Amino acid sequence: MGDHVPEQPVGSLSDAWRYCVGTGELPLALRRDYQDSLALIQREIGFRHIRGHGLLGDAVGVHRPYEWAGRRDVRHVFTYVDQVVDAYRELGIAPFVELGFMPSTLASGTQTMFWWQGNVTPPSSYTEWADLVLATVRHLVDRYGLDEVRTWPIEVWNEPNLKDFWLDADEAAYHHLYEVTATTIKEIDAGLQVGGPAISPGSDDWMARFAEFCATRDVPVDFVSRHAYSSGPAQHVPFGVHQTLAPAATLLEQFGKPREQLRGTPLAGLPVHITEFNSSYRPDNAIHDTAFHAAYLAPVIARGGEHADSYSYWTFSDMFEEAGVPAALFHGGFGLLTHRQIRKPTFHVYAFMRRLGSAILRQDDDYLVTRDDSGRITVLAWAPVDVTGPVGGIAGHRISLSLPMADASADGAAFLLRSSVSETMGNAWAAWGELGRPASPTARQLDILRETAEPVRRHARLPVVGGRVELDLVLDANEVTLVELSMVADETPQWWDERRLLGGTP
Amino acid sequence: MGDHVPEQPVGSLSDAWRYCVGTGELPLALRRDYQDSLALIQREIGFRHIRGHGLLGDAVGVHRPYEWAGRRDVRHVFTYVDQVVDAYRELGIAPFVELGFMPSTLASGTQTMFWWQGNVTPPSSYTEWADLVLATVRHLVDRYGLDEVRTWPIEVWNEPNLKDFWLDADEAAYHHLYEVTATTIKEIDAGLQVGGPAISPGSDDWMARFAEFCATRDVPVDFVSRHAYSSGPAQHVPFGVHQTLAPAATLLEQFGKPREQLRGTPLAGLPVHITEFNSSYRPDNAIHDTAFHAAYLAPVIARGGEHADSYSYWTFSDMFEEAGVPAALFHGGFGLLTHRQIRKPTFHVYAFMRRLGSAILRQDDDYLVTRDDSGRITVLAWAPVDVTGPVGGIAGHRISLSLPMADASADGAAFLLRSSVSETMGNAWAAWGELGRPASPTARQLDILRETAEPVRRHARLPVVGGRVELDLVLDANEVTLVELSMVADETPQWWDERRLLGGTP
Amino acid sequence: MGDHVPEQPVGSLSDAWRYCVGTGELPLALRRDYQDSLALIQREIGFRHIRGHGLLGDAVGVHRPYEWAGRRDVRHVFTYVDQVVDAYRELGIAPFVELGFMPSTLASGTQTMFWWQGNVTPPSSYTEWADLVLATVRHLVDRYGLDEVRTWPIEVWNEPNLKDFWLDADEAAYHHLYEVTATTIKEIDAGLQVGGPAISPGSDDWMARFAEFCATRDVPVDFVSRHAYSSGPAQHVPFGVHQTLAPAATLLEQFGKPREQLRGTPLAGLPVHITEFNSSYRPDNAIHDTAFHAAYLAPVIARGGEHADSYSYWTFSDMFEEAGVPAALFHGGFGLLTHRQIRKPTFHVYAFMRRLGSAILRQDDDYLVTRDDSGRITVLAWAPVDVTGPVGGIAGHRISLSLPMADASADGAAFLLRSSVSETMGNAWAAWGELGRPASPTARQLDILRETAEPVRRHARLPVVGGRVELDLVLDANEVTLVELSMVADETPQWWDERRLLGGTP
Amino acid sequence: MGDHVPEQPVGSLSDAWRYCVGTGELPLALRRDYQDSLALIQREIGFRHIRGHGLLGDAVGVHRPYEWAGRRDVRHVFTYVDQVVDAYRELGIAPFVELGFMPSTLASGTQTMFWWQGNVTPPSSYTEWADLVLATVRHLVDRYGLDEVRTWPIEVWNEPNLKDFWLDADEAAYHHLYEVTATTIKEIDAGLQVGGPAISPGSDDWMARFAEFCATRDVPVDFVSRHAYSSGPAQHVPFGVHQTLAPAATLLEQFGKPREQLRGTPLAGLPVHITEFNSSYRPDNAIHDTAFHAAYLAPVIARGGEHADSYSYWTFSDMFEEAGVPAALFHGGFGLLTHRQIRKPTFHVYAFMRRLGSAILRQDDDYLVTRDDSGRITVLAWAPVDVTGPVGGIAGHRISLSLPMADASADGAAFLLRSSVSETMGNAWAAWGELGRPASPTARQLDILRETAEPVRRHARLPVVGGRVELDLVLDANEVTLVELSMVADETPQWWDERRLLGGTP
Repeated sequence: MGDHVPEQPVGSLSDAWRYCVGTGELPLALRRDYQDSLALIQREIGFRHIRGHGLLGDAVGVHRPYEWAGRRDVRHVFTYVDQVVDAYRELGIAPFVELGFMPSTLASGTQTMFWWQGNVTPPSSYTEWADLVLATVRHLVDRYGLDEVRTWPIEVWNEPNLKDFWLDADEAAYHHLYEVTATTIKEIDAGLQVGGPAISPGSDDWMARFAEFCATRDVPVDFVSRHAYSSGPAQHVPFGVHQTLAPAATLLEQFGKPREQLRGTPLAGLPVHITEFNSSYRPDNAIHDTAFHAAYLAPVIARGGEHADSYSYWTFSDMFEEAGVPAALFHGGFGLLTHRQIRKPTFHVYAFMRRLGSAILRQDDDYLVTRDDSGRITVLAWAPVDVTGPVGGIAGHRISLSLPMADASADGAAFLLRSSVSETMGNAWAAWGELGRPASPTARQLDILRETAEPVRRHARLPVVGGRVELDLVLDANEVTLVELSMVADETPQWWDERRLLGGTP
Repeated sequence: MGDHVPEQPVGSLSDAWRYCVGTGELPLALRRDYQDSLALIQREIGFRHIRGHGLLGDAVGVHRPYEWAGRRDVRHVFTYVDQVVDAYRELGIAPFVELGFMPSTLASGTQTMFWWQGNVTPPSSYTEWADLVLATVRHLVDRYGLDEVRTWPIEVWNEPNLKDFWLDADEAAYHHLYEVTATTIKEIDAGLQVGGPAISPGSDDWMARFAEFCATRDVPVDFVSRHAYSSGPAQHVPFGVHQTLAPAATLLEQFGKPREQLRGTPLAGLPVHITEFNSSYRPDNAIHDTAFHAAYLAPVIARGGEHADSYSYWTFSDMFEEAGVPAALFHGGFGLLTHRQIRKPTFHVYAFMRRLGSAILRQDDDYLVTRDDSGRITVLAWAPVDVTGPVGGIAGHRISLSLPMADASADGAAFLLRSSVSETMGNAWAAWGELGRPASPTARQLDILRETAEPVRRHARLPVVGGRVELDLVLDANEVTLVELSMVADETPQWWDERRLLGGTP
Repeated sequence: MGDHVPEQPVGSLSDAWRYCVGTGELPLALRRDYQDSLALIQREIGFRHIRGHGLLGDAVGVHRPYEWAGRRDVRHVFTYVDQVVDAYRELGIAPFVELGFMPSTLASGTQTMFWWQGNVTPPSSYTEWADLVLATVRHLVDRYGLDEVRTWPIEVWNEPNLKDFWLDADEAAYHHLYEVTATTIKEIDAGLQVGGPAISPGSDDWMARFAEFCATRDVPVDFVSRHAYSSGPAQHVPFGVHQTLAPAATLLEQFGKPREQLRGTPLAGLPVHITEFNSSYRPDNAIHDTAFHAAYLAPVIARGGEHADSYSYWTFSDMFEEAGVPAALFHGGFGLLTHRQIRKPTFHVYAFMRRLGSAILRQDDDYLVTRDDSGRITVLAWAPVDVTGPVGGIAGHRISLSLPMADASADGAAFLLRSSVSETMGNAWAAWGELGRPASPTARQLDILRETAEPVRRHARLPVVGGRVELDLVLDANEVTLVELSMVADETPQWWDERRLLGGTP
Repeated sequence: MGDHVPEQPVGSLSDAWRYCVGTGELPLALRRDYQDSLALIQREIGFRHIRGHGLLGDAVGVHRPYEWAGRRDVRHVFTYVDQVVDAYRELGIAPFVELGFMPSTLASGTQTMFWWQGNVTPPSSYTEWADLVLATVRHLVDRYGLDEVRTWPIEVWNEPNLKDFWLDADEAAYHHLYEVTATTIKEIDAGLQVGGPAISPGSDDWMARFAEFCATRDVPVDFVSRHAYSSGPAQHVPFGVHQTLAPAATLLEQFGKPREQLRGTPLAGLPVHITEFNSSYRPDNAIHDTAFHAAYLAPVIARGGEHADSYSYWTFSDMFEEAGVPAALFHGGFGLLTHRQIRKPTFHVYAFMRRLGSAILRQDDDYLVTRDDSGRITVLAWAPVDVTGPVGGIAGHRISLSLPMADASADGAAFLLRSSVSETMGNAWAAWGELGRPASPTARQLDILRETAEPVRRHARLPVVGGRVELDLVLDANEVTLVELSMVADETPQWWDERRLLGGTP
């Protein structure tokens, strides 16, 4: 007999896992492949918010100084902001606004980050910065309505604790920027939500000081944010890197840090948003493309909501240019999808999450059992992984469960649908390897990759005895699997007899 | 070592298998489900022509007598004809025109056929019939162009050898109808193609007499047509029937009959169109929905082109009302697709056919090997079936082949993609049974059925040694499988080392 | 100075005009042209409910008796019901359920109505009828949810006061049918809405007796319904009729009758639904296609909500077969749209209604002024028509208005957009006449007709002085026009100078 | 009587006008708005080729040097090239390949052009440049097929005669670049078409020297190319310029120059492609948005084919960033369409061209008369414009024609459809002005602009007497109008009598 899963829920599954997803820099949102990918993501997963860099950068072109009649003035241009946010709204997703980086026309220096050259220096004029923030947020409110924009968190800058992202990682300067920005936003409406400090892992001490700064100066703050990654230093090869990974539990620890750090401060109890997370922080690490990655992150995605109010997978698509134009279809990008919409194994973890019910019946190291309002039971299970390798994993992990389908008095049958991705199932990256790693796949190869990216689905009718189904799962190497079980309402007519299909006598 | 498949083609695969497909009565072509299904069929299979009953029936409403100023006249109305044929043209398919049945306003009697009551009596006026034919074909020529309509075969009536389809199965009356019709059509343009006698199995002697009639009276005939079915008498249950089936070879024999029967007649050498074929001729025999059916028909579909110029599967969709409105999603309909576009196993035989190359390298009782211009090799293979049952078949049939991928001097690798349907793979009907045979599946159940209808796809990289790949296939019960093999052009960079994916040392 | 339109609303515009629209018999809802048309209607107008005949008729196929093991039983089949209602839900519209006509398998007689032969006789078994109603409504509740179906009015039969629609127009038999049906529905859920008696004009006395019957026997009734038409007897020509029309005010009178008739009865205060209305009750009266028809009905559509809770235009599309397959593109059908989605002038009256605001500022015999929440002012105006003809109307009717755009202190400008249909504008039927009345227009002719069906749109910038705009409208023959006025927020930059566009000096 | 247009054609209309259209830099082709616009352009106009800058620039990312094992190597990456060209192929358009500008990784200097910083310096290594060209063209041949790519002209660089586009406008260096490039391309296949020198106006002497250089050194050349513009120097205002324009005839003169200049050289008779033309060469001159512009260019577009083999309008869409992100919806961009697909008046000139027949019956300074195979007659006519202004033009220009519709013996009727754009018709830019020039129009404003951009269409039935129609056109200010005339085949039934529509007696 398998582990006895109780009928009474032990908790409820929040929306934290789908609250937000990451995106490449915002000008990319103008692209068709990006929008096609986001449409697919929304259809099959359905995130609430989307967050990425570059809203205020030169390529979006908001800050536009000019001279007329001998005088300098600034025009705020929303041509592309509108095209991006209109597209988001059509696709049923809302911005998680990140204010940054610095327009070159407003920057105090020339230091840039990434291939696309985001300027990371403080504003040359905080007044003009405040005007820029004011104009931008007001434009959003005018175009999309105050009620709507009040639901969009607004985060000030990105990873100011890193010198690459904020000149000299100057904490006082960040606090000043935060204060100017937050008070400007509240001028528009007190109900708008603003937060920070958007720090990367490795500077945990910033959080307490941010809390203290806000409290001391009575600076508005509606949520706090940080990032979580679990990879070691980059070992470079052409067009890529390799990295060691810490066990996935590291990520859950990072998710939990802000609550812990704010305990006892005036910011205690504020929503905590993990505004970026992934294994590797590099957009060119092949690990992102693997089945290993799905099994590695499955427990994080399944259970992250116990630790934070959201955790935003970085990023939904490989349409991403921080390290330049990707040199091959699979190139180790962050995306849940490659260009051209090939689903990676980690995509399916999210697509599986969407099928879960809201009542948690049981959770363990390698599975999560839920029930929805219709009585459907789901089991999300994953193979344990070993970060010391090999990356191909090991087949054969077993999970046995006794699942409560109905009243203890009920006998009958349940329909089982099992969907799996693993080393050998739903693994387009493996198929791409077999195809010879074509950098520019042909149309037919893209079709094959799309087909091989489909989870393998198995179905059966299982007996329900005493209200219970006995389920034995044997997992493939790096498998993540979703089992869905529903009671069968049998409509088979009384005259049905399969033996007669070829005209035989009953 | 498997059977040695030679490098030199032994023949070429014609388009006969895709030349035509059957459809339910033409008014159904106005429906959205019908058009959605046909769009899917065209995208994934791509037939050239489509043939069905009812063009001239009351529900299409062409023949419209009226009175004015004390005089009877007839208006020919093409409102629905245009909607149907315009839709066909948009979907890249052309009519295989069947002229019938009789408008009640032109009929000499009241005998009807089918739930939708097609009148099967001769015209009360052959002049008015000729006017109707003339107006209809001329309208098609005016709207779609003579060059186009010259490629549409025009068949006179349907199964006149059966009393249910033609009053008293009166052969002389059919010959007269044919003559009037054919000569009328040639009045419009000598290049239009007309044919008959569209007979069902069981009246083989009609063919020779049709040839003689045409020859004697110099009646135009551009092709001959007949039907082929392999089922025994109907054993009725509510909303369905069961029937015995003859072995599939019976169908190929029927395909070959017209060429045999016309040998030595003036019609020898004319194109032969099998304008309907299937196992059972009943739209409510569950056998159509099974994996057995795919395996049973696979050799017929694969090799029918050796016997006739076309053989039209009756029919592409379950949108069909000869026996009334279908009482459940799966109801034993003829369709390759159910309503709501669930692919049945037999659908996939056609979808697999579309992937074949044009050069036949070898054909045998249980497989067909082809190559296309790019060098891709395909193997279409099927499990042998036993018509005495059980319908579930037997797993384990093996086929071993040595396939020529490249020059004998070439070593390397091939990418294999294997797509399968069988009792347990790509079998939505089986899943529907496990779900309890819901007559009206919910939206979610429809999604599950669509997913379970996908063929199972497996992929691998195989070694090519001396230009050859060794392939061992073990077939599941009632499996039909398509293997595609292409040479791999390996672009893996020299620095690639999978052991490094988790940061390990190379 | 034009008529002074006050700033304070005098009333508010209800949704009665868009609460419901009529449709041809339900099997037609399976068609693509129908669904394409309904999609367009929903996109550009947006009705809440849709009502048509034939739900229980043979062509939908719900009632299916069979024999097994020597016993008769009935299966209720929802194959097509689901396809129809699923399509409605996708298109954002809900059924206004009409229960009828009689399945031939349950009918007590053979009398039928219409080309599509709806059986109009009472049930042979009221028990079996109750089972049919129960199964049907329960299926809807199961599939679409109780909360949803509670919002769908359920009407018992259609025009039982006419012998053609209900055997002998037997009032007692109708009352019995109503009682059996209403009590059956309430067995499922007391919150479901049921009503009748769905009478045609000319039997006004039925209403009071229906009220009395319900009250006396305590039969549930949630709303009452009747129809409204304004045409005289049919003068036949081939494929059509001509009729005299009463002035449009007749229709408003008919709308108001039930409230009047129920005053003082226990049914007083119940919602009143005019479940069909139009000028002519014939589907082959060319008047429906004309600009005259739009101007004739404009005051009815604009002001009907003062008299009833809904009034359902009969019907949204020419896809309609009560008189057989339409013999030409324009054939006098009821539709707001022809087949192939040509918008008729009356379509635009509804599309204009959708642009109105909810605050009524003024209404008069020939116009209606509203304001929406954004301050936009609309004027819907129509040319008076004379039902004694000529049908082409007279140009030159003038309306002058002084409209309140803003505070009395405000000067500035307003943007005017005027959209018009008339004898010469947005009148595809007139263009079709010029084209020679092609029964089967070519693809290019259909494009031309779609283009000529577009309302003519004029735009201008008008001065706002003292918060007011002066508007002078001169109407074309049979014109219906929508004027929309919004305050201009001028962003013209200070350096703009149109004289410089060709390089000239400012 | 109007000018007598003869029945016999005087010439035939070539495809030169639609052979090619210009586009903003190729990375923009990845965008959704770009692709939406191109889809609309192809649906309503249908160009054959598309030409733009930037194929080899950093943002497309083809040239990618790297180091491995201590050695520098280059990878050629086609990730974005494929996405762009695949999209073109889907939309039914093919590249007119322009090779340029220089990847920064291959450049010999740092001089750049445009906001998007195209590097305009010669390659640091001509060998590596040749490798780049070879890899790129070979990739196109591999992916799209040699037969296809042979039809794509390949042009070497852009405007090398200007210092801004080619370092020092070094003619010898260009000749060398051309030679290396052209010979490299011919290595792949002799049937590929290569050409130059892609010069701007103002350096006409380059052409003869290019011819001489090619002839002397036997360098392959399949076509020659140049550009044509008619504007004077830029007068700057913020976010825009104003310029004088020379009369439109200047453009036709420029089109004709290459044929003239090559007369007597070995390149005489080669195809001449005007690979860019427009009035102003600035992407921020409001003249592009006006009705004036349509009337100004109409004679150029209508008659350019007399002077060159193609003339490519620069550009199809305002999605264009040479001067940065556009600061308002209408900003004087080159586009036939604005962002969000508002059709400008000049768009309609092209859409009108598409309706012309291939037989030219007559052409004059202000009109062009054609006939197509079906006998349909078109008149494209335009108001004369005065480049000295005012830009608003003058209404009232008249054109009277006697048009041959049919045999001189035929009387009957013709259907006239007249489509017009002018100052007051189909002029979204004017409506935008009335709306207050909103930089970021709301969704509703965008709808209004799309509606106001529709040409005004008028229709009538005209008498045909003696086979002729008399047509009197009075043109609005800056009008361009298309008149289409077809013979009416009258199907009006004999019983039709409009006086009976309201039930009146005939």
